[in-house]
Amino acid sequence: MDVILHDLCGADPARRFSPYCWRVRMALAHKGIGHVTRPWRFTEKAAIADAGTDKVPVLRHGDRTVHESWRILEYLEDTWPGAPSLFGGEGGRALSRFVNTWSDAVMMPAIVRLVVSDIPAHLAPEDAEYFTRTREARFGKPLAAMTADREGTVEAFRRDLHPLRMVLRERPWLSGPTAGAADYIAFGPLQWARCVSAFPLLTPDDPLHAWRGRLLDAFGGLARQAPAEDLA
Amino acid sequence: MDVILHDLCGADPARRFSPYCWRVRMALAHKGIGHVTRPWRFTEKAAIADAGTDKVPVLRHGDRTVHESWRILEYLEDTWPGAPSLFGGEGGRALSRFVNTWSDAVMMPAIVRLVVSDIPAHLAPEDAEYFTRTREARFGKPLAAMTADREGTVEAFRRDLHPLRMVLRERPWLSGPTAGAADYIAFGPLQWARCVSAFPLLTPDDPLHAWRGRLLDAFGGLARQAPAEDLA
Repeated sequence: MDVILHDLCGADPARRFSPYCWRVRMALAHKGIGHVTRPWRFTEKAAIADAGTDKVPVLRHGDRTVHESWRILEYLEDTWPGAPSLFGGEGGRALSRFVNTWSDAVMMPAIVRLVVSDIPAHLAPEDAEYFTRTREARFGKPLAAMTADREGTVEAFRRDLHPLRMVLRERPWLSGPTAGAADYIAFGPLQWARCVSAFPLLTPDDPLHAWRGRLLDAFGGLARQAPAEDLA
Repeated sequence: MDVILHDLCGADPARRFSPYCWRVRMALAHKGIGHVTRPWRFTEKAAIADAGTDKVPVLRHGDRTVHESWRILEYLEDTWPGAPSLFGGEGGRALSRFVNTWSDAVMMPAIVRLVVSDIPAHLAPEDAEYFTRTREARFGKPLAAMTADREGTVEAFRRDLHPLRMVLRERPWLSGPTAGAADYIAFGPLQWARCVSAFPLLTPDDPLHAWRGRLLDAFGGLARQAPAEDLA
């Protein structure tokens, strides 16, 4: 059965920048699941309406649709049990969920305040209007105001990553001896940022910078080859 | 072989309040490992010097000594492989380490600023002098100044727990279908606080409050029966 991933893109269909879609793309590569990605833009709601959502990632597997990145990761693990494990057992699955809530609650809001104003320039005109209007309504201020102090706020962001840094000082991957779902979950927001913004989130001497580099190199450079702005 | 845990206590030897020792006590109970605890005070360095450390927890197992709570948890898992697992597999072990770094980097410093000034009153005179002198040197201010604004800082602390809260809204335990090492690791700092301070860290409507209550009730109420100040 064919596997199709609806994957957020910019004006250039090759620019894929959704943090949630990147989690799924890395997981598909980890499991070696053949698939095609289908570029999708914010305003193309009709293309995924049958999945019962208006957001990507949406995975199609034969007649089935699955949406929301965490649910897709679980679906991949359960549907391809013979492929390399994403979680490393039930304890790993349970705590990968904690990495997911930590990444969503700590990394995502901080990165919004570091890169969101750089996003509209990469979008098709209709999407840029949609994105700017909906995000400015959500945040209650212009996008430029969101990131105005980013030279200062990036320091707090780097401090907030300290629990992850402490682990990655001890070993190369968060998930254990090899990379796994937890790595891809925490990597997604960093890949989102570098795909849309040249603003440097990590310093070169940070163990997180080297870890991100290993993930960029994984699977034949899947994530490194994607169009991006921060090439460090 | 006998198992002995050197366990931090106050002037009252029954008041056990180390967050790190509580992680180990819950893990010993989880695995059903018969043991005795030996009350230990801050200034009794000689009693554990043979273990190569000046801090508890120190575990003695026959001729072996193990110190540092994370290393003890791994030792228990590896030495009693037939007892109920603390980690739920290698993926769970790897990510329990992340819960440990998160708890140490996020929970511990915040709780210090909420309860540290309440600790000396529970200590024997020599220990109170030692604790106050060493902590005031570390923090660069009087203990009372550390907690002076705690009515305000507790709000930030509760927000910082949000990744944990998001998981515990979905299920009763962090570690999965049953409690495990990750639960005990995050519980330790909360138990430390309630054993020394009546200052309420959690509101009764918080899912974390109910989760803490389940851990207090576990193992026949092991943690609830300990002398404490916050009885909510």
